[in-house]
Amino acid sequence: MAEFSLIDRIRQRAGSRPDVALGIGDDAALIDPPKGQQLVLAVDTLVEGVHFARGVPPSAIGWKALAVNLSDLAAMGAEPAVALLALTLPDDDSAFVDEFAAGFAALADTHRVALVGGDTTRGPLAASVTVMGYVPKGSALTRAGASAGDDLWITGTLGDAAGALALWTSGLPMLRTGRLRDRLDRPTPRLGAGIALRGLATACIDISDGFLADLGHLLAMSGLGADVEADALPASPALLEAFPDPLLRRELQLTGGDDYELCFSAPVARREAVRKALDAVATPASRVGSLVAGARLRLFDADRLPLPLPARRGYVHFAGSDA
Amino acid sequence: MAEFSLIDRIRQRAGSRPDVALGIGDDAALIDPPKGQQLVLAVDTLVEGVHFARGVPPSAIGWKALAVNLSDLAAMGAEPAVALLALTLPDDDSAFVDEFAAGFAALADTHRVALVGGDTTRGPLAASVTVMGYVPKGSALTRAGASAGDDLWITGTLGDAAGALALWTSGLPMLRTGRLRDRLDRPTPRLGAGIALRGLATACIDISDGFLADLGHLLAMSGLGADVEADALPASPALLEAFPDPLLRRELQLTGGDDYELCFSAPVARREAVRKALDAVATPASRVGSLVAGARLRLFDADRLPLPLPARRGYVHFAGSDA
Repeated sequence: MAEFSLIDRIRQRAGSRPDVALGIGDDAALIDPPKGQQLVLAVDTLVEGVHFARGVPPSAIGWKALAVNLSDLAAMGAEPAVALLALTLPDDDSAFVDEFAAGFAALADTHRVALVGGDTTRGPLAASVTVMGYVPKGSALTRAGASAGDDLWITGTLGDAAGALALWTSGLPMLRTGRLRDRLDRPTPRLGAGIALRGLATACIDISDGFLADLGHLLAMSGLGADVEADALPASPALLEAFPDPLLRRELQLTGGDDYELCFSAPVARREAVRKALDAVATPASRVGSLVAGARLRLFDADRLPLPLPARRGYVHFAGSDA
Repeated sequence: MAEFSLIDRIRQRAGSRPDVALGIGDDAALIDPPKGQQLVLAVDTLVEGVHFARGVPPSAIGWKALAVNLSDLAAMGAEPAVALLALTLPDDDSAFVDEFAAGFAALADTHRVALVGGDTTRGPLAASVTVMGYVPKGSALTRAGASAGDDLWITGTLGDAAGALALWTSGLPMLRTGRLRDRLDRPTPRLGAGIALRGLATACIDISDGFLADLGHLLAMSGLGADVEADALPASPALLEAFPDPLLRRELQLTGGDDYELCFSAPVARREAVRKALDAVATPASRVGSLVAGARLRLFDADRLPLPLPARRGYVHFAGSDA
């Protein structure tokens, strides 16, 4: 091990890109940014016992540490390029690092992301990842920019990860949680959808803290309110099967978090264009409501009858989190 | 506190730059990179109990978390631009965050670094910082590129931080360690020197793990050896006073680490140019030896008599660290 440090193990899986002039191995990496593009930068940390439970497979931690960051780039409409990893480990566990790196690399390779910086330190298990991507100047999606009257959309389905967590903490056998658990452990960042929505979405955010919580951020930044049809929130067959009670299921979808789907607004006139753009990248999407003037958020059922807002709107950040 | 999260407290001190199109507050930051420049990226983590002791002032932790990263940019000859901070805290301690942010901002403001990404999570105290800077295409300094016969140089003085740590762990009163302690807690990244050395230094590295350990990295990447005159290693008046024993002092200078000085090579013919360039940025520098062919590192005293190499060459990384 003395001649083959943990960082060297990670470096084996770093990948390469033509814009990376110098990768891991010097004091810093050197990147040639493409012309006409803005850089898009985000950082997120996963801590054992807070963001994932003890016993989650190292490969899933590696995958998710990158996925939650790529999801931030997706929400900006960015194309990912490079990542830097700060991995803190309680001991010199090369098997853990190999599995972590394999999970990280599986997702990185899918999206041609090169790992250009790595730092391994001793301490309680945590992984902090910084990602950088590119977006043509002026075409980034942001949380601001929505207009009253815009449709409100959601990619994919909501509630699976929260459902897996609920089942898992209730002690149910893994057998039942399989498909849901995969959404919790290995979320799929909606990168193709984010890029497809450039020029179409007026505002966008990824759902990490829970639909209502993240929608709240979008509304605050856009200075608007929303009318949401709760029964229109998309649910997977696995969620429908595991949670037949509609009230419990709705709670998971509204406040559960860890979905890593995109929540975005688009003009009513672009409804068909949105549909086509997302079809082209094989991303399902549902219209779930409308943006309205004023700072109010209202929930309705399928009969347009008002529903109470849940007391708890989403995962309560210990200390807030951004970018 | 509910309406004013920890990340908002940090955001107050984020600073601004014309190349930052969108800072903290969305899913990611947007940067307009300057034309003709390469991007320089590095990440480093400080963990309580590993990189700093319990009881170090929060402002010093904030300063140092940025400083160790800026030192990596200095070693590349880069000009810093933006930073992203992932801060992990055991509890919701707003006073800690305010002091941490003040220390971070004091250094960031000095070098016009904007904080464009922040993530605060709960967990054992740690700060992971990613920095991005710029360097004109093709002019970055790297660890490779030195030639046999080149002079070996060191900026500033060595051993102060290691001396402070030695005195502190031995239980000496703070009074004696003051000036040394400041080097340990608030290191000065040699950014001006790094930029001044563009086109002059043939290879460069910052001294974080200890002079011999980091020189070893430079030699390995350049495929060379070195003859070093141990008595030429620069010592501060504070170190000379606190450690009158030359053998102990030399040990601190050779292997102590946490110096954040630059160790670089330059052609003999550029000796005066190096001197002038560093004088212009008020950075003292000393010639401490020469690079030689072959993979050997030899130490000499002032009379050119060979000295034994210390058994321990520097801070032994738990798991390796790079970029």
